[in-house]
Amino acid sequence: MVKVGVVGYGVIGQRLADGVSRQEDMELVGVCDVGPTLSVRALKESGMPYPFFSGSMDNSAFEALDIPVTGSFEELVEASDIILDAAPGGIGAKNKATYEKHGKKAVFQGGEADSVADVFFHGYANYEKGLGAKWLKLTSCNTTGLIRAVDSMDRSVGVEKVAITIIRRVADPGDYHRGLTNALMVDEAPSHQCLDLMHIMPHIHATGILVHTPVTHGHIITLCVTPKKSVSLEAVEEEFRKHDRIRVVSRAEGFLGNASLFRYARDLGNYRSDMYEIALWKDTLVKSGEDIMFAINIPQESITIPETMDAVRAAMEMQTDRLEGVGKTNDYLGLGKWK
Amino acid sequence: MVKVGVVGYGVIGQRLADGVSRQEDMELVGVCDVGPTLSVRALKESGMPYPFFSGSMDNSAFEALDIPVTGSFEELVEASDIILDAAPGGIGAKNKATYEKHGKKAVFQGGEADSVADVFFHGYANYEKGLGAKWLKLTSCNTTGLIRAVDSMDRSVGVEKVAITIIRRVADPGDYHRGLTNALMVDEAPSHQCLDLMHIMPHIHATGILVHTPVTHGHIITLCVTPKKSVSLEAVEEEFRKHDRIRVVSRAEGFLGNASLFRYARDLGNYRSDMYEIALWKDTLVKSGEDIMFAINIPQESITIPETMDAVRAAMEMQTDRLEGVGKTNDYLGLGKWK
Amino acid sequence: MVKVGVVGYGVIGQRLADGVSRQEDMELVGVCDVGPTLSVRALKESGMPYPFFSGSMDNSAFEALDIPVTGSFEELVEASDIILDAAPGGIGAKNKATYEKHGKKAVFQGGEADSVADVFFHGYANYEKGLGAKWLKLTSCNTTGLIRAVDSMDRSVGVEKVAITIIRRVADPGDYHRGLTNALMVDEAPSHQCLDLMHIMPHIHATGILVHTPVTHGHIITLCVTPKKSVSLEAVEEEFRKHDRIRVVSRAEGFLGNASLFRYARDLGNYRSDMYEIALWKDTLVKSGEDIMFAINIPQESITIPETMDAVRAAMEMQTDRLEGVGKTNDYLGLGKWK
Amino acid sequence: MVKVGVVGYGVIGQRLADGVSRQEDMELVGVCDVGPTLSVRALKESGMPYPFFSGSMDNSAFEALDIPVTGSFEELVEASDIILDAAPGGIGAKNKATYEKHGKKAVFQGGEADSVADVFFHGYANYEKGLGAKWLKLTSCNTTGLIRAVDSMDRSVGVEKVAITIIRRVADPGDYHRGLTNALMVDEAPSHQCLDLMHIMPHIHATGILVHTPVTHGHIITLCVTPKKSVSLEAVEEEFRKHDRIRVVSRAEGFLGNASLFRYARDLGNYRSDMYEIALWKDTLVKSGEDIMFAINIPQESITIPETMDAVRAAMEMQTDRLEGVGKTNDYLGLGKWK
Repeated sequence: MVKVGVVGYGVIGQRLADGVSRQEDMELVGVCDVGPTLSVRALKESGMPYPFFSGSMDNSAFEALDIPVTGSFEELVEASDIILDAAPGGIGAKNKATYEKHGKKAVFQGGEADSVADVFFHGYANYEKGLGAKWLKLTSCNTTGLIRAVDSMDRSVGVEKVAITIIRRVADPGDYHRGLTNALMVDEAPSHQCLDLMHIMPHIHATGILVHTPVTHGHIITLCVTPKKSVSLEAVEEEFRKHDRIRVVSRAEGFLGNASLFRYARDLGNYRSDMYEIALWKDTLVKSGEDIMFAINIPQESITIPETMDAVRAAMEMQTDRLEGVGKTNDYLGLGKWK
Repeated sequence: MVKVGVVGYGVIGQRLADGVSRQEDMELVGVCDVGPTLSVRALKESGMPYPFFSGSMDNSAFEALDIPVTGSFEELVEASDIILDAAPGGIGAKNKATYEKHGKKAVFQGGEADSVADVFFHGYANYEKGLGAKWLKLTSCNTTGLIRAVDSMDRSVGVEKVAITIIRRVADPGDYHRGLTNALMVDEAPSHQCLDLMHIMPHIHATGILVHTPVTHGHIITLCVTPKKSVSLEAVEEEFRKHDRIRVVSRAEGFLGNASLFRYARDLGNYRSDMYEIALWKDTLVKSGEDIMFAINIPQESITIPETMDAVRAAMEMQTDRLEGVGKTNDYLGLGKWK
Repeated sequence: MVKVGVVGYGVIGQRLADGVSRQEDMELVGVCDVGPTLSVRALKESGMPYPFFSGSMDNSAFEALDIPVTGSFEELVEASDIILDAAPGGIGAKNKATYEKHGKKAVFQGGEADSVADVFFHGYANYEKGLGAKWLKLTSCNTTGLIRAVDSMDRSVGVEKVAITIIRRVADPGDYHRGLTNALMVDEAPSHQCLDLMHIMPHIHATGILVHTPVTHGHIITLCVTPKKSVSLEAVEEEFRKHDRIRVVSRAEGFLGNASLFRYARDLGNYRSDMYEIALWKDTLVKSGEDIMFAINIPQESITIPETMDAVRAAMEMQTDRLEGVGKTNDYLGLGKWK
Repeated sequence: MVKVGVVGYGVIGQRLADGVSRQEDMELVGVCDVGPTLSVRALKESGMPYPFFSGSMDNSAFEALDIPVTGSFEELVEASDIILDAAPGGIGAKNKATYEKHGKKAVFQGGEADSVADVFFHGYANYEKGLGAKWLKLTSCNTTGLIRAVDSMDRSVGVEKVAITIIRRVADPGDYHRGLTNALMVDEAPSHQCLDLMHIMPHIHATGILVHTPVTHGHIITLCVTPKKSVSLEAVEEEFRKHDRIRVVSRAEGFLGNASLFRYARDLGNYRSDMYEIALWKDTLVKSGEDIMFAINIPQESITIPETMDAVRAAMEMQTDRLEGVGKTNDYLGLGKWK
């Protein structure tokens, strides 16, 4: 059993803990945060399903709320084999010194600078690079989803280049510190997701534009992919359908947009109403000459969880084969099971 | 064990089924809908936790999706002691003939006309009226929450009148058939919720204005309550804190608005991210002369579930005492347990 | 001709300049800002309808864009009899030293601290207090609109107390530095608008709750007013209809909410699509016992312009009688003309 | 002077009337609508700048509001040389019989079926096809803007194909009959705009995906254009800068998204806060191999006005040369003047 600690118990940290607790070959040592946020209060109210470690010098705020503290940040690190760091962007780089001091490996999320890690990681695209690595950084939510689709096409027909439009959700449900009201916002191009994709898949050229939109669940991305050889829409769809982390959906079924997918996750009774898969609209799959165009949905809160589990598998050499590694993650998360 | 059938498996119907399945003295016979909506597809994908009955003459659409059909609408009615009708507004009135034919009782939701029922019901305010009744109609989501707060004050100090402003969410998460974009909309006053409150509590005068807002989770209502005698803010707060279906929250804890409460329900890991309680902001509790003013949050998708369970208890005379009846519901739903 | 300078050429500053330029007994000396914002670029593109003064030490940014600079901030102050300060909140207090140095009067907007001014001013409610005053501060947008309605009732039947719910627009059209997405936010009560109302009208008790909503044009406020004596809804409506800065509107005419009023201002061809009047929905005028309840719309960008013109009239003693003063403003802005 | 009548006085009809009234070689005979909408009430309140004709059999509603009626629908048609039909989609086809009966030409807007017209028209792309034509239909707002950009590139370097992502505003400011709340919606691909582009420019292949977003002013479109020969980004930008109906803007100037452009139109004091130009973000101009990618903003309410004026010029053969025709429109609307 690989012992895993989760540092930072926010939107991503909660879901990393959920993911680890579903991996039968991993043990969740505990989660850590610095103050009694709503998420920590919820942990207490729901009966402490995860052991809590305090990242604060002063535990009086936790004591005042009767939140049981199992130990300190350093004690969590010491008790773990590997740390999943989901602290706010930039804090992970500071935490790294502690991980180093205790001789532990760590996986950082997309908000940290690339320099924090040796390996920029994606379970499906470059699992092998993560094998035995000490410091790994996950691709961000959009890039993780993008690469699932591009990697799928690349492994079947080869991909030369891709032009991307990211229609980005601007805040998570419950965010009050950021938001847009009745406005779309255009970023400078190319967006970092394209650069990140090229970092992971250096043989592909990627560019693209990102536009922020005032919604809270699910980015939608359109891709215009230039394959290395001509391929039919049916063949592309067939490959996507085989992928355990891609759902092919349609308007006819009732999936009209990102909000349908969030509702569907709730209807499924998924824990925290999360979904791990990207969705790909069959209705949008069209050709532009030999280029293949389509739209996908990215559930931003939970999408990186499976690839982070993959990262643990690679870093700890639990499975040395790519498909075996991602397959274990899929089994424990129930991915592909519904097909 | 009282046998309960749920007709209509949409936003409310799903949650009624969840609620019934948590009542240890009720048995969920099954749920019924007319077509393979996203919710019905989700039922299938999640392994049929609830038996499904078809409200359609033609089951080929269900068969094409391998959705097992346990029986017909009439078979569900026949197998049940009481029906919870959550069909779209107006359909319940048509379904009533079938319930009548099979000699079964029914509880309708707020979307039906008042004339469909003998008793307009609220668990806390008029439980006794529901005892043994055949046709009951629940108050709508806003009215249900409103009455919890007003009834609490009324039973402790007496309420003379109340002036209400409803800041209404305009659509549920996932709705594409209705919505507002960058607009507030004003309804004609007084809003129906005031009239409904007076129907349930005829000794209180209520009026108010409703404004629709472009958000999806949680109505916020401000009340200006004229009590029958002077009362301190502390005493009012104390009463609210005792109530098992009211959470007293504050900005200092991190509850900044309706979106914080939805996030908190997700952080709690609540099934479908639902919350049964209204929230009442301590920060908003102020006096206007002797009047008491405050704001509450109404989780529109799930708030009527506890009161509907109460309605089954009253109609089936499972408990003849009000506090015993609502108390059983609270026990099985875990309400008040976290205090 | 009273010479008026406008400092700060943002959302409010532009509209103050528009307002002054329509007063036939005032002369707009010019407007001042510190950098080439979009508004300053628009001034240039539209042919410099207003002389521009630079609030910056370095005019190279203006020169690079061929924006003609008439003079410096101090030169504008020196050339003016009175300054309308619409700089961002807190900057006005710093600017005051310069106004003092040149012996000029100033009118500050609601974003400044109360301490910046001798007189907290509202044209209709306390014009007399502003007579000859040196430092005046306008009520904020919501308070300005609120007081128009409350003052109207107070002068006809007397007002004892008022309970307010402010449904606030969270950002102006074009704002990217603030916003809410799918969230309502509750403020601590009582909101500052109630305190401000009591500051201006100390004989009235006011309290209330403010909720932020994700829309950009027009706050909606509900008021529950306790009059000093019983009054009919017809009599209240009649008073409102007489007021030159209040429009009585209805859903039947097509005014469904704040967005209808913004659209109507555009349909009218109003400059910058502005409206100076609050709107009051006849459909919402109801009684709660003897209390009078109704809803109004506050066009946040332009509503304080008439009262600021009134402030110039009072401070410069252009008219010493309240109704004469506000009447001149109304004449020049065309208010009431359409009735 | 060509005599022009405008039928339908809604969002587009009002702006067509504005446009015609600015063409010194056209005379606006009048505008026509069927009822006292807010726009018609605004016409009355603003002093009847345009003569009004009634499209209703019964004028009592207009009389009740003292709206002077110059004549009937048929009288407007008879008095005009050409009709600009901006009635709701589908009504134009019915109105056509009346135009036919009186032997008058007509220009329909994009909401009508293609079959209503002989020529599907765009001023810049196929002016010549409109020469002397009897029935013309304008491209819709998105297609009109798209074609401006694609035609500009096509005339300079040749365009082979284009892949489009339309990030669509879902409602106009003031709309209450449609809207989305916290949801993106995906349409079936390819969107009609691509088909329409190919109809107008049959030598170009176009495909694309459309996603609806909950905002009210300005569609944003990303284009990935495959030119016939390699071209530098500087050369592409240079061509766009020369175009009188395209503004090249940047984030550095303060144009962060569609809302900045709407605000800028207001800051300019443009009538009804309208803008006739598309905006093209310099910051988004990137290469994907030899493909050129960029994003544009489409002000949906006013963008088709210049091309509709072009249509009148072509149909009435006021100018037989393309650049002379569009140039006259540009002169009268002040397009390109600010450069």
